[in-house]
Amino acid sequence: MTPSEAVSTFVEHWNSGNLEAMYSMCAQDITWHNIPMEPIKGLAAMREAVDGFMEPVEKCEWEIHAIAANQDMVLTERTDAFLLKDGRRAALPVMGIFQINREGKIAAWRDYFDMAQFQHEFAL
Amino acid sequence: MTPSEAVSTFVEHWNSGNLEAMYSMCAQDITWHNIPMEPIKGLAAMREAVDGFMEPVEKCEWEIHAIAANQDMVLTERTDAFLLKDGRRAALPVMGIFQINREGKIAAWRDYFDMAQFQHEFAL
Repeated sequence: MTPSEAVSTFVEHWNSGNLEAMYSMCAQDITWHNIPMEPIKGLAAMREAVDGFMEPVEKCEWEIHAIAANQDMVLTERTDAFLLKDGRRAALPVMGIFQINREGKIAAWRDYFDMAQFQHEFAL
Repeated sequence: MTPSEAVSTFVEHWNSGNLEAMYSMCAQDITWHNIPMEPIKGLAAMREAVDGFMEPVEKCEWEIHAIAANQDMVLTERTDAFLLKDGRRAALPVMGIFQINREGKIAAWRDYFDMAQFQHEFAL
């Protein structure tokens, strides 16, 4: 699996709701940084953050518009849409970068987006 | 010049303050979209926006941390730092995507960042 294929598969796991398959693609010492927020370090902390984050979410519908790799780095432009449990649909334009380690796991994931846009989309 | 080389050169023109060389790399119908803001369409509108945007800026010091191309799309992770005329230094983490047209010009440029972070950095 190339680095780009790994990232595409990772996004598919989010979209199919197969979070255990998603976690299995992450390094134990992954750093997950939503840039406007503090970085989250390690898989245990990531699980906790995902649990909270996904609480109002019924289903992810993340679309990759562009993807390109350079050695171990994979850069994406996406729209991360979320079907919420209350029936609404939130959609966030985002770019993200993924670093793939020697074992083929995601060692770093940084997403760039506008926090106000995120809050507006998720606001009740 | 490959698409990645074009984007690296474009960033160098910003950093050297050679804005005419920078504009010469843009398509006449360029769309420049700072994602939290409205898109700017066409080179004339871009010139006007850059004039306003650069008013407090002494010098750009944009650093490309990662760059990858896929066909006509070039994706970057950068820190866009600005030396301001009042002596301060603003720095913004950003990812941007550039679409290169058949003439080798930049036809689209979209930057993703947190607007609150931008405002905080540029605030007096």
